Amino acid sequence: MSDQYVYSFGGGKADGTGTMKEELGGKGAGLAEMTNAGLPVPPGFTISTRACREYFERGEKLPEQVDPQMFAALGQLETLQNQKLGAGENPLLVSVRSGAKFSMPGMMDTILNLGMNDQSVEAVAKKSGERFACDSYRRFIQMFGAVVLEISKHDFDHIFDGAKKKAKVKLDTDLTAEHLRGVIAEYKKLVQKKTGHPFPQDPRKQLEMARDAVFHSWNNDRAIYYRRMNNIPDDIGTAVNVQAMVFGNLGVTSGTGVGFTRNPSTGDKEFYGEFLMNAQGEDVVAGIRTPVPINELHDIMSDVYNQLRDITTRLEKHYKDVQDFEFTIQEAKLYMLQTRNGKRTGKAAVKIAVDLVEEGIIDKHTALMRVEPAQLDQLLHPIIAEDAKGAISADGKSRLTVIAKGLPASPGAAVGKVVFTADEAAIQGKKKQPVILVRAETTPDDIHGMEAAQGILTSRGGMTSHAAVVARGMGKCCVAGAGSIAVSEKSKTMTVDGKTINEGEWISLDGSTGRVFFGAAKTADPDPSSGEFAKLMSWADETRKLGVRANADIPRDAEVARRYGAAGIGLCRTEHMFFAAERLPHMQAMIMARTEKDRRKALAKLLPYQRKDFVGLFRVMDGFPVIIRTLDPPLHEFLPKREELMVEIAVMKATKKPKATIARKEAILHRVEELHEFNPMLGHRGCRLGITYPEITEMQARAIIEAAVQVTKEGKKVIPEIMIPLVGLEKELEAQKAICDRVAEEVFAKAGMKVHYMVGTMIELPRAAVTANEIAKHAEFFSFGTNDLTQTTFGFSRDDSGKFIAAYLEKGIFKHDPFQTLDQGGVGQLIKLATERGRKSRPKLEVGICGEHGGDPDSVVFCHKAGLDYVSCSPYRVPIARLAAAQAVLMEGAGASEAKRTA
Amino acid sequence: MSDQYVYSFGGGKADGTGTMKEELGGKGAGLAEMTNAGLPVPPGFTISTRACREYFERGEKLPEQVDPQMFAALGQLETLQNQKLGAGENPLLVSVRSGAKFSMPGMMDTILNLGMNDQSVEAVAKKSGERFACDSYRRFIQMFGAVVLEISKHDFDHIFDGAKKKAKVKLDTDLTAEHLRGVIAEYKKLVQKKTGHPFPQDPRKQLEMARDAVFHSWNNDRAIYYRRMNNIPDDIGTAVNVQAMVFGNLGVTSGTGVGFTRNPSTGDKEFYGEFLMNAQGEDVVAGIRTPVPINELHDIMSDVYNQLRDITTRLEKHYKDVQDFEFTIQEAKLYMLQTRNGKRTGKAAVKIAVDLVEEGIIDKHTALMRVEPAQLDQLLHPIIAEDAKGAISADGKSRLTVIAKGLPASPGAAVGKVVFTADEAAIQGKKKQPVILVRAETTPDDIHGMEAAQGILTSRGGMTSHAAVVARGMGKCCVAGAGSIAVSEKSKTMTVDGKTINEGEWISLDGSTGRVFFGAAKTADPDPSSGEFAKLMSWADETRKLGVRANADIPRDAEVARRYGAAGIGLCRTEHMFFAAERLPHMQAMIMARTEKDRRKALAKLLPYQRKDFVGLFRVMDGFPVIIRTLDPPLHEFLPKREELMVEIAVMKATKKPKATIARKEAILHRVEELHEFNPMLGHRGCRLGITYPEITEMQARAIIEAAVQVTKEGKKVIPEIMIPLVGLEKELEAQKAICDRVAEEVFAKAGMKVHYMVGTMIELPRAAVTANEIAKHAEFFSFGTNDLTQTTFGFSRDDSGKFIAAYLEKGIFKHDPFQTLDQGGVGQLIKLATERGRKSRPKLEVGICGEHGGDPDSVVFCHKAGLDYVSCSPYRVPIARLAAAQAVLMEGAGASEAKRTA
Repeated sequence: MSDQYVYSFGGGKADGTGTMKEELGGKGAGLAEMTNAGLPVPPGFTISTRACREYFERGEKLPEQVDPQMFAALGQLETLQNQKLGAGENPLLVSVRSGAKFSMPGMMDTILNLGMNDQSVEAVAKKSGERFACDSYRRFIQMFGAVVLEISKHDFDHIFDGAKKKAKVKLDTDLTAEHLRGVIAEYKKLVQKKTGHPFPQDPRKQLEMARDAVFHSWNNDRAIYYRRMNNIPDDIGTAVNVQAMVFGNLGVTSGTGVGFTRNPSTGDKEFYGEFLMNAQGEDVVAGIRTPVPINELHDIMSDVYNQLRDITTRLEKHYKDVQDFEFTIQEAKLYMLQTRNGKRTGKAAVKIAVDLVEEGIIDKHTALMRVEPAQLDQLLHPIIAEDAKGAISADGKSRLTVIAKGLPASPGAAVGKVVFTADEAAIQGKKKQPVILVRAETTPDDIHGMEAAQGILTSRGGMTSHAAVVARGMGKCCVAGAGSIAVSEKSKTMTVDGKTINEGEWISLDGSTGRVFFGAAKTADPDPSSGEFAKLMSWADETRKLGVRANADIPRDAEVARRYGAAGIGLCRTEHMFFAAERLPHMQAMIMARTEKDRRKALAKLLPYQRKDFVGLFRVMDGFPVIIRTLDPPLHEFLPKREELMVEIAVMKATKKPKATIARKEAILHRVEELHEFNPMLGHRGCRLGITYPEITEMQARAIIEAAVQVTKEGKKVIPEIMIPLVGLEKELEAQKAICDRVAEEVFAKAGMKVHYMVGTMIELPRAAVTANEIAKHAEFFSFGTNDLTQTTFGFSRDDSGKFIAAYLEKGIFKHDPFQTLDQGGVGQLIKLATERGRKSRPKLEVGICGEHGGDPDSVVFCHKAGLDYVSCSPYRVPIARLAAAQAVLMEGAGASEAKRTA
Repeated sequence: MSDQYVYSFGGGKADGTGTMKEELGGKGAGLAEMTNAGLPVPPGFTISTRACREYFERGEKLPEQVDPQMFAALGQLETLQNQKLGAGENPLLVSVRSGAKFSMPGMMDTILNLGMNDQSVEAVAKKSGERFACDSYRRFIQMFGAVVLEISKHDFDHIFDGAKKKAKVKLDTDLTAEHLRGVIAEYKKLVQKKTGHPFPQDPRKQLEMARDAVFHSWNNDRAIYYRRMNNIPDDIGTAVNVQAMVFGNLGVTSGTGVGFTRNPSTGDKEFYGEFLMNAQGEDVVAGIRTPVPINELHDIMSDVYNQLRDITTRLEKHYKDVQDFEFTIQEAKLYMLQTRNGKRTGKAAVKIAVDLVEEGIIDKHTALMRVEPAQLDQLLHPIIAEDAKGAISADGKSRLTVIAKGLPASPGAAVGKVVFTADEAAIQGKKKQPVILVRAETTPDDIHGMEAAQGILTSRGGMTSHAAVVARGMGKCCVAGAGSIAVSEKSKTMTVDGKTINEGEWISLDGSTGRVFFGAAKTADPDPSSGEFAKLMSWADETRKLGVRANADIPRDAEVARRYGAAGIGLCRTEHMFFAAERLPHMQAMIMARTEKDRRKALAKLLPYQRKDFVGLFRVMDGFPVIIRTLDPPLHEFLPKREELMVEIAVMKATKKPKATIARKEAILHRVEELHEFNPMLGHRGCRLGITYPEITEMQARAIIEAAVQVTKEGKKVIPEIMIPLVGLEKELEAQKAICDRVAEEVFAKAGMKVHYMVGTMIELPRAAVTANEIAKHAEFFSFGTNDLTQTTFGFSRDDSGKFIAAYLEKGIFKHDPFQTLDQGGVGQLIKLATERGRKSRPKLEVGICGEHGGDPDSVVFCHKAGLDYVSCSPYRVPIARLAAAQAVLMEGAGASEAKRTA
């Protein structure tokens, strides 16, 4: 065994097995497995990965045994096929493909039709037609020339295009055999010129060269780069698979097709697919001929059809999952070319997983691993209705054009008329007109417009820009950072690729893909309460250990959160409550105040509003904890923008407006200037506000505790948790907690009753993480604010990093945008450290996460491993978190390599 | 012994000793020590800290033994003094003071004259005059009333002021005995009213009450707060010191004075001080009578004078340091009231320390510990000439007024005419006119003006604002963030407290204290090459283990750095080189370029300038390493400001300027808008520039290596270290290092020679610190950029934190501004972690620090402990770092408690 480098398969048996991925690579092992299962697979052989490893150990030279073993396997194949490689009247042609243990784009492409030469082309011509033969030969030269001989593909294309031009034809298929012979002649000249040698005519030489090229490609730059990016070891090597060619275009008893064992769109249990007779695989794709639904194969070749159904049913049972297969019929004989687990929509994934459990094929845990949590998004938001030709227009009659692509910031579909200001959106919203709010970027001032709009489109900002975060919180569709769009609020137009779209014109957004369509699209409604969905979720809940809460600021969001299964609110941002029209003036008065007394006066006016907000939340969340964060953003966010004021004043002066009018504006600008910050993210915000203006914290704590007392008296169970943001020093929290405790005592004394409450903090600064043991002395809970923690750990501004994050992803500096998927190597280390240190000083510390990462599946898995108590995410991502949390448990149980997601 | 709560001293011997600080407190131990040394100290006794501890353990009740022991000690004191407490013809009066192990402001004030009552006042009157007696009594009631009986001091003042008004006198001393008797009567009424009891007349009762008040004050809010701030344990307790009163105002053979054993201003060995006959301590301070130089005491009472000289000489030898002493002569008998190590200027500190070594009193190590490193600043910059009445005007004839106080951002003195723009500063500078550049804040555009100015004054920004950092780098005086000043560039005025100062008027700055003076001050030059200074520095260099480098961008700074003893450059910021007039256009062209080709064209023009810069540096630093950092700031810093352009365009439009003109401005604004960032600190800067535009790094690496080759060929030793800023991910450094290495190979190949160089990184992001093991794989050195590391660890923007850091310091949230003194608890943890992890993956990793903290003495000590190889600071702080590094070694050797700084 130890001397075996080459493994044959065919004729119902294989030297290798499906478990030998190390030696045979993924593809080779799969071919062996299918062959052993008695499936009609074109026969061939696999040269093992070991040959590759030794090839490099010996300085790109193969062990002596490989050649004899390979030609022995070739002999066996020739005997089985009753053909000779590239020789005789019925020459054997083979394909050569690489195949490592892990799927690895970047390595050698496939070479088809190996064995073609000046002799065999004539034999094939005689047997299968001259055009077919010539086309096969020229394709072979081209592939071999490019891949093995490393001649630029462009040089071949140049010759081929020249031939088409000369023949005055547009389609490749319009070239006759005569034309193709001319192409072949020129290709051969090119090879001679570039390599100094004629195109190799000896089929066995061709095979050796192709094999060596595969091995050589293991160490090309793209392959090395791909391995590094995917943490694939450099020393495992690739196998080479050599397989007899089969052709679906050898006449009316030949054909080719693709199919699924179940409907990949709906999940329904139906045989699904299409085929073409007398055609090659690429003809199905090219769209020149229209493929036929697979069930019609039954009428044409019922034996083949039955065999195909039988085989694919067996394959599904064998692989215990829906199969996506390719087949070819060569002269009435069925060959299976490929089978793999089928890609499917979220809806189908859920249905198939649940159905397979009910059919007794898989168990519940396997079912849970079969659904990619992110796919659940598709079940929870309306989607753009599409068919093969694209998005369907609202009237169902035409297809819409994609005019731009941005970031898929908040999923779902949105259809509406374009508006360019939040005010206009609000006006149209009141008239029940569907609108899309289009802005360069949104600010907290736009909230009312965002609420009124069907969806939000911005030309700037990333996945965690204001628009994206707020839209996700609202469960509202958003496409952010569509950089090719120029938005002019002034002229009320958006321009993209020279096309101008005016206010009132229809556009549609696909928040799941980031596409922007011109025109009104048809949408399809999701069915989140479907039986399968509910069932899968109940299994997830049985399995998971991590709690799931939602980020929600208002009762409406809290209701959605509960509907989606959230067991509490992990983050209520109180500042969103200050932007409402009747409150903003008091907030601004508070900010303009020069004395504590005046500030307290303004705060006293805000108190009743805040209390009412919290009363609403506590009622909805009866029996569940509600974490309320004290004021976080810098105060200037509540005032007009500095540049706008500056421009306004400059224009007033230039146009000689009255001095008193100018002076009033200048007073506002003066305060704005005072509050202006170079880096507001790192400025006077979070608990720093509560330290410098303790009366703000006092008012908020009072509103929370008074609301808790009121709702408790109504007979509901209230579990308030007051969260102090942006703490970096033990003493900050100590001081803020003292205010909360004092206020609570006062309120309780007056009410004659107590409500249990907790005071805790966000851990969102590296300093808080490293000093968590000190901070936990005063914190009853921690909640990781991973948005800010990511910003400070990396030194990346969420709002600005769009400028280089794309380049970073492209250059492979990192694999994921750390604002989308938690950076486990850096930020994650701080989370683990803080959890450990925090629990050391307070063993019962409640620890959760409330950043955007709380709804990201990989991040949820990390949180489970780090021992957190819960994750909190936007209401619409709650089911995703529930599923991911269950998968985290299963991955842990089985060891990550076994139970990885298969869908 | 274990039952002893009270320790007597007096008559040449004491129960306690100087080492018993735990039991007797600092003051009590000192009194015991002086008594044992045979010094004439007023006798008395100390009630131990243990009594205090047990007082609280028993719920504010003293152990039974205390009262009998105290009265026994009192008896002993009465016998010694031949007096009775508050009784008889010559009544004993005592003082009562608290005294914990550590000096603790916030505890009970001193009570003097205890023993006074309605009888003893008459006895004293008979003996020492009626007015003296009455005044002593009313003072005692007032102190006892406020401190022991907790009656508001205000109530006493009210009565006293009323008496003065009624008597129509202005000074306290103008009140007669008669008047004072009236005051005493009213004071006693007040006590009766407030406490419900008459003023206690029993002297022994007075003593008990005063003692208990001292113990009680241990747990008052101010004391608790002070202990928390200074990490003093709550359970050590305080002692109580009871001491016989002595009076310097009992006639012509009485007197009082203060003095130093050496001149505290110059350090010269001369008896220094002043005194008044027939006076109390407070008369010396009040300024009503002019004190007399101490040497004149010799003429008045030569015995007393000789005794005083003898005693203080012994004291200096005993305490091995210059003594600051207080004495009283009561009826021709000398009493020493206090002696302590004297405060002194930096100049004096150095001279005294060195002199004491040469006199054989202390050793070199002790001398090194005697100088506060920060004091060296005074020796290295010109200073404002001052006398007791304030800063002296340039003509020496008058005193200047302090008009504002800002942050002492960069030490030294500066005198010049006010200018409000950098251009004006440059123009005046060329005319050799001394100017002070006054700006709201400075920007990189102001560099030429800052260079031309004598000093810089800003109304905004903190200790690490642009103005402060650049000024320190230049060794130029700067007062930053003088918030009370309003600067108007437009009207060319500054306004402070209603006073307007115009361009061209003279002001003076004291960068060591932050004071701003109106008018031109006289300045005094330092003498950094003085014998003592050089000697002390040589001892520091023998002792220290930490290397000291300087931050310097240009050859001139590098020369200063070498002069001050820097062994290398730890940070050369290349961006400062791009602001020069002939370079900025190329830099801007580079930024405006839309293609790599255009960028390379602009960079090619910058290359010769950069190379020249580095050639200059390398020549000066012959034989020493030079760390050069690649481009760090965001590109928009090199373009005009966004708001300015916006305003300009708006005005152009309002005044209907030609469209083409407007369009040109708009094109620039467009690029500025593209580059605009919400949080530039966290934006597209540092190595992120080098990753997105590798050609920038390439140009800089080429300039460095070509310069190194050139200067090496001149026969000098060049040790270049290329530093990549703001690395957070291993792959960032890997990619940037690859560029440097490739360019170096190219240059070496062309030059036919190699120069050893290193590539390393700044550790200035928390992510870099926690992944230091990964980053060290590619880094040959680390340099902690503690400015940015502090910003990101705390989430504080240096430029904005001024808004709350003052409040934080005031409220005790933290003890030091973390931008001035390294935050060891947070940032320090990351530094230690990164050093450990970095050296784990590369044991020979060179580790240093180049943030502003490199010149802060406490931070230097931390760096020594953390095992760093060197610190780097601005050239003028190099001696400070050298001394601090030596002290770090000594503190380590002796244990921090022994070898703490004593000066």
